[in-house]
Amino acid sequence: MSAPRGVLDAGDLVQFLDPKGRRYQATLRPGGQFHTQSGFVEHDDVIGLSDGATVRSSRGQSFVVLRPTLADFVFKMPRGAQVIYPKDLGPILLLADVGPGDRVLESGVGSGALSMALLRSGADVVGYEVREDFAERARANVERFLGDSVGDRYRVELRDTYDGIDERDLDRVVLDLPEPWRVVPHAATALRPGGILLAYTPSIVQVVQFRESLEPATFTQVETIEVLHRSWHVEPPSVRPDHRMVAHTGFLTVARRLAEPG
Amino acid sequence: MSAPRGVLDAGDLVQFLDPKGRRYQATLRPGGQFHTQSGFVEHDDVIGLSDGATVRSSRGQSFVVLRPTLADFVFKMPRGAQVIYPKDLGPILLLADVGPGDRVLESGVGSGALSMALLRSGADVVGYEVREDFAERARANVERFLGDSVGDRYRVELRDTYDGIDERDLDRVVLDLPEPWRVVPHAATALRPGGILLAYTPSIVQVVQFRESLEPATFTQVETIEVLHRSWHVEPPSVRPDHRMVAHTGFLTVARRLAEPG
Amino acid sequence: MSAPRGVLDAGDLVQFLDPKGRRYQATLRPGGQFHTQSGFVEHDDVIGLSDGATVRSSRGQSFVVLRPTLADFVFKMPRGAQVIYPKDLGPILLLADVGPGDRVLESGVGSGALSMALLRSGADVVGYEVREDFAERARANVERFLGDSVGDRYRVELRDTYDGIDERDLDRVVLDLPEPWRVVPHAATALRPGGILLAYTPSIVQVVQFRESLEPATFTQVETIEVLHRSWHVEPPSVRPDHRMVAHTGFLTVARRLAEPG
Amino acid sequence: MSAPRGVLDAGDLVQFLDPKGRRYQATLRPGGQFHTQSGFVEHDDVIGLSDGATVRSSRGQSFVVLRPTLADFVFKMPRGAQVIYPKDLGPILLLADVGPGDRVLESGVGSGALSMALLRSGADVVGYEVREDFAERARANVERFLGDSVGDRYRVELRDTYDGIDERDLDRVVLDLPEPWRVVPHAATALRPGGILLAYTPSIVQVVQFRESLEPATFTQVETIEVLHRSWHVEPPSVRPDHRMVAHTGFLTVARRLAEPG
Repeated sequence: MSAPRGVLDAGDLVQFLDPKGRRYQATLRPGGQFHTQSGFVEHDDVIGLSDGATVRSSRGQSFVVLRPTLADFVFKMPRGAQVIYPKDLGPILLLADVGPGDRVLESGVGSGALSMALLRSGADVVGYEVREDFAERARANVERFLGDSVGDRYRVELRDTYDGIDERDLDRVVLDLPEPWRVVPHAATALRPGGILLAYTPSIVQVVQFRESLEPATFTQVETIEVLHRSWHVEPPSVRPDHRMVAHTGFLTVARRLAEPG
Repeated sequence: MSAPRGVLDAGDLVQFLDPKGRRYQATLRPGGQFHTQSGFVEHDDVIGLSDGATVRSSRGQSFVVLRPTLADFVFKMPRGAQVIYPKDLGPILLLADVGPGDRVLESGVGSGALSMALLRSGADVVGYEVREDFAERARANVERFLGDSVGDRYRVELRDTYDGIDERDLDRVVLDLPEPWRVVPHAATALRPGGILLAYTPSIVQVVQFRESLEPATFTQVETIEVLHRSWHVEPPSVRPDHRMVAHTGFLTVARRLAEPG
Repeated sequence: MSAPRGVLDAGDLVQFLDPKGRRYQATLRPGGQFHTQSGFVEHDDVIGLSDGATVRSSRGQSFVVLRPTLADFVFKMPRGAQVIYPKDLGPILLLADVGPGDRVLESGVGSGALSMALLRSGADVVGYEVREDFAERARANVERFLGDSVGDRYRVELRDTYDGIDERDLDRVVLDLPEPWRVVPHAATALRPGGILLAYTPSIVQVVQFRESLEPATFTQVETIEVLHRSWHVEPPSVRPDHRMVAHTGFLTVARRLAEPG
Repeated sequence: MSAPRGVLDAGDLVQFLDPKGRRYQATLRPGGQFHTQSGFVEHDDVIGLSDGATVRSSRGQSFVVLRPTLADFVFKMPRGAQVIYPKDLGPILLLADVGPGDRVLESGVGSGALSMALLRSGADVVGYEVREDFAERARANVERFLGDSVGDRYRVELRDTYDGIDERDLDRVVLDLPEPWRVVPHAATALRPGGILLAYTPSIVQVVQFRESLEPATFTQVETIEVLHRSWHVEPPSVRPDHRMVAHTGFLTVARRLAEPG
């Protein structure tokens, strides 16, 4: 039986936040310790506390302990150079219109950030990934963040999406790979009529090539957008956008599968 | 028993898309008709077709028929002047970190756009709304778009959030009202420790006042961002951002509830 | 002898601003009249007034009379579909580093907006333009806005820049034409060592092709930027970016001419 | 007699650019040396070369030698923490509509970046500055970059603009100081009718306070904008905005002085 939501339990993933805003993550386990340069914290002293409680390390440093949000986790989880940032995850959920029970093919899975967003939205996700280390890491990250809630809704296969897609009647296909245009014919076959195809691509040259591969007889409502987040510094009388921002991650291109002419 | 996902059924909400990109929405019902200046389409001729099929009106105009995405629906649904746009809905899901089973208070509900996004993410939503017409419209829109999948996860109460919040142990409180700072003390009581408070405000003056109301002993990890979407025109050799864009809707400010000192 | 700067004189270009912010422009001449739907104003009643004075029309409508800024003039002057907007004019002056005595080739001249900015910065400008109507309009606009201050610093030639550039030892070459890459070899010959080449292009595909034409042995310090202006609505408590903005005009690409290897 | 523009002469300010894009600046003088970790270059070996020539250091490192643009100089010149960036200088010239012979009051002068842009546009500039070290640095930077071309068009006075402005009949007043609203009454007196007042302010709170100080009977056509530059990485097939950008420097607010009612 799990503890109430507001109480930190063994097995919970938590984030330690120090007064300077530095963040550290750990999964609580009986007998465990969280070590920093400012001393350590016994996991047993955290288990049973409220989410959002303050603890002190052996050297007196205070830490707020909070269950990380999905976005917190994505910034801290083990990952390769490439990850789809939280800034893009929300818009992808809306553009690809993902909801409970949707059957989604995701390729590649990278470190699993998008998998987590899709799964938490209630989708059934099949991931195709060519690199075994990425597949393992994605599975581990999903397991670590979402735990039992995933059940059998997530499966990662070690295979190359350029070679084809075995699934049929998919609701959505979401691509984060270098040459998404090579997947378009496979996606056209694998998607149910009315299904949605989305590609995340860093370069506008990829956008052009991807869009040129979308036959008007097969795909409609094609759109490409970029998402920009601008954060604000609010310490009156200083109220202004932060001085620096992420200016680019990737372009999001989306299209809908038409039905075959009757 | 419902039809397969790829087949349009009576009761389905559909979007008719003409060759110029104009969009119309209707709920299919036996014997119904969809009327435009270019003639009409019998609903009975649409029921049973594939999602994404093409039909012709009595005057020979072709229409693609597609189930609308949540974003499509939000742009077309009955609504007042104010609505939270799809551009902001995805980021709100990530910032407020909304997932299955989360107990969310939303106020006001406006036309229900955010309610739909929260509900589809699996949350249980209580809406507080002062205007009866808004409450009814939100309920109707949610019912129309999400149908039976909502079950008893949505309830809208006709009441003023400035007067207080009855719920306790809420996971999230999401505010879209003119003076969110007046709700902060109520939210502090109603949120469980570790819970998340988010406010959507059009004016930076509201942001400042809201943030000043967030006591550091009660709320942490306060952030304010704006979300910008830039759409692209991709018709090689013309590949460029569209000439005009939505430059502003609202600022999103988020904070986490600390636990009471033990 | 001209009137003091603060006094409106015959021959002056003025802008009439009504209380709703609508703007009209005219050149003051003795006996002239400015007509609107709200009555007329005698130019003779304006001549001799202070810049920034308020006048009333025959029907009692008040107008503020102000000499237009260069930006005001560009928005109102006779022009074709294409014009380089004030938003880009300032950055072009900085990127192309234009100052007094600089010898600049500009092609095409369009309606003369950029010519005006270059000339006012003190440059000597030769314009190449293939369309006679554009050339005439550019000359007329420059004459109308800058008047005698231009002297012999402006010359527009009716010719095709793709065919070559006769000038030598130019300090800057500024291009606003569809295929700037076809001018690069000519610009390489016409620019003095250390000179600057700038191209304004609406499409990123043009940027790519232009940059690919810049030989690393001939051009260095190549940069491409976009300029965005975001205007604010400041009516406390409503303080926010305006809802709509110009999201795109053109990309600015700049490069410097290397000296030939000695 | 000065050398032709394309030839580097003693007394010229030059920029040494290494193959990695690092930039160094120096003023050429007979017998001088430019030292780096990659060896040194004799100034005498540079004097007489073409602008844009390539030289080699004592250790064989190659450097391109180019006269810096105003923007290059601003990024490298001696300066305090605060400087108006080239991104804003061009738009300020357009918004304040600065041209030859315009009498401009600038306060404070900071490191002189804006002074240089105003002077190069042909304006006569009086600077008010409270800090003597800033005033000296601004004068030195202006002298170093613009040299003799300035003549008697630049004067910096050590004084506090909040105490008043002695000049009358000014064409423009350009403010970069913490409380520009305290200068508004002085500017109203010092500006000629039709003159332009511009304030550069980092915080939106300053914008609000400044705009509230602009009496509608005295100032009109008030506008506030932000300027964003987005730079692009163009190395096909990678063509995309750079990953990071400057998200904020300051807000630009501009207004025009009305004539006193007759």
